[in-house]
Amino acid sequence: MSLLVLGTVAFDAIETPFGKTERVIGGAATYISLAASFFRTPIYLVSIVGDDFPQAFLDELQARGIDTGGVQVVQGEKSFFWSGRYHNDLNTRDTLDTQLNVLTKFTGEIPPAYQNAEYVMLGNLDPKLQLKGLESVSRKPKLAVMDTMNLWLDIARPAVEEVLAKVDVLSINDEEARQLTGEYSLVTAARKILAMGPEYVVIKKGEHGALLFHQDEVFVAPALPLEQVFDPTGAGDCFAGGFIGYLAESGDVTYENLKSAVMFGSVMASFCVEKFGPERLLEIDSNDIQQRLKQFLSLMRVSAEMPPR
Amino acid sequence: MSLLVLGTVAFDAIETPFGKTERVIGGAATYISLAASFFRTPIYLVSIVGDDFPQAFLDELQARGIDTGGVQVVQGEKSFFWSGRYHNDLNTRDTLDTQLNVLTKFTGEIPPAYQNAEYVMLGNLDPKLQLKGLESVSRKPKLAVMDTMNLWLDIARPAVEEVLAKVDVLSINDEEARQLTGEYSLVTAARKILAMGPEYVVIKKGEHGALLFHQDEVFVAPALPLEQVFDPTGAGDCFAGGFIGYLAESGDVTYENLKSAVMFGSVMASFCVEKFGPERLLEIDSNDIQQRLKQFLSLMRVSAEMPPR
Repeated sequence: MSLLVLGTVAFDAIETPFGKTERVIGGAATYISLAASFFRTPIYLVSIVGDDFPQAFLDELQARGIDTGGVQVVQGEKSFFWSGRYHNDLNTRDTLDTQLNVLTKFTGEIPPAYQNAEYVMLGNLDPKLQLKGLESVSRKPKLAVMDTMNLWLDIARPAVEEVLAKVDVLSINDEEARQLTGEYSLVTAARKILAMGPEYVVIKKGEHGALLFHQDEVFVAPALPLEQVFDPTGAGDCFAGGFIGYLAESGDVTYENLKSAVMFGSVMASFCVEKFGPERLLEIDSNDIQQRLKQFLSLMRVSAEMPPR
Repeated sequence: MSLLVLGTVAFDAIETPFGKTERVIGGAATYISLAASFFRTPIYLVSIVGDDFPQAFLDELQARGIDTGGVQVVQGEKSFFWSGRYHNDLNTRDTLDTQLNVLTKFTGEIPPAYQNAEYVMLGNLDPKLQLKGLESVSRKPKLAVMDTMNLWLDIARPAVEEVLAKVDVLSINDEEARQLTGEYSLVTAARKILAMGPEYVVIKKGEHGALLFHQDEVFVAPALPLEQVFDPTGAGDCFAGGFIGYLAESGDVTYENLKSAVMFGSVMASFCVEKFGPERLLEIDSNDIQQRLKQFLSLMRVSAEMPPR
């Protein structure tokens, strides 16, 4: 089934304790669509770049089954640029520079050919554009997932809440869940978010894994214990891409299958952090994914029974 | 099989964001032996208290199958006292007061009747006393587990390392694992700890669960997502008590069974944090444990398979 991905395609400059890049390709929609492209689903990518963005990379995406016809290339403009420095724990970072550039011209218009998409992934973006994208889809999607970030909670909370009321899944990190709800406990935060509209909430906790909440149910997925997280940039987006890509291929949006999707999200995120930018995603194939999934499942394999009393 | 528990029996005064207690019963060995007492294994408790410690509580322990004959009551002395205040995140705390009192007289002497114990739990204590306790056991125990804390790493590291070389399992929290090894990554930290002697390392991460490392294997256990952690005091000790209590009852120290033991440790810790001090442990029974275990296993239940390619 077809998957619409709305979000940024951009440049990043990243510093981590392990190294530094000048300018690499980044953007939420880049990571999402790359991670989703390992699943058999047509992907419609809607984004905007300047004329500095390498056509070769768009061609690479296209070759991977991602329809980039919805990526608007604006002559005379520069692509969105973000630069950040991660602290030693890799869970916190400082933004060094944000240049919106061409992003100020983005309208979130969905090309007519994409409006029949059955799965919709709203990457982190101005919630007004997320809303416009979602409303452009011609019928209610089988599943709509949104991500957001602290910036939008600070400056556009009502619009975030408006999108939230219309999607099926919110995918968010722990600090954002706390900011959105004013609750420290993630269980209470999730309960409040579910009351705001979505049927599911995924709370991503980085090296501590992810939680999926649905009604009174919780599923806890581990992160892969790694010796070295090289660069966490894009990990949350890869999670979202693996999550929705798997669901779009399987066409099954039951709670049980969303739990499986969380595992594929975790798998894709675990590859992402192994190298700078999207580099690692360009190297792996579906065998690697299968192997990594096995590794994840073996992390959680246990039987335990209270001895008879 | 018999379980020897060496550690403190004491008083605590605790402040959390949810309330404050004047003076409640605490101590690592109290929590360990209470948590272990839900499993069918004779427990030999070795500790020291002053004449201010309530005999009724020792009687309560005795009634629960914990042999308190090894708890020395010193007339004219006060019991060990610790007071602390937890921060809002409940993962960090400040020590407000520590009064060693009778603890300065503790020799770690193991009564002859206890020296045939097959399982040994060395609660957080001066490593010299842990070593003495371990060496008093007449034959090599089937499994010896140690806990420790930052204080001993600061002031008695060589002795900690000496004990570490002689036990089978180190049970430690994430910050202590980092302090012990100088490694931020818990995977690297665990590898270094395994190289120091023990066959297994359990790293406790509070609300993020626990990791069990053995050779190149890792098992990840979740914590129960709770709306409210009332008081984390003793949670790590309850983990250790549930862990070794289950192992002592089952008599099986394979890696597979240690994974099950991690689940029972997590279950006991999840009860502990629900009320102040050991209060909650005095209310539950084996049915509650069985129910909670089911809840834990359902948190982790998932099947996931890469769709055929």
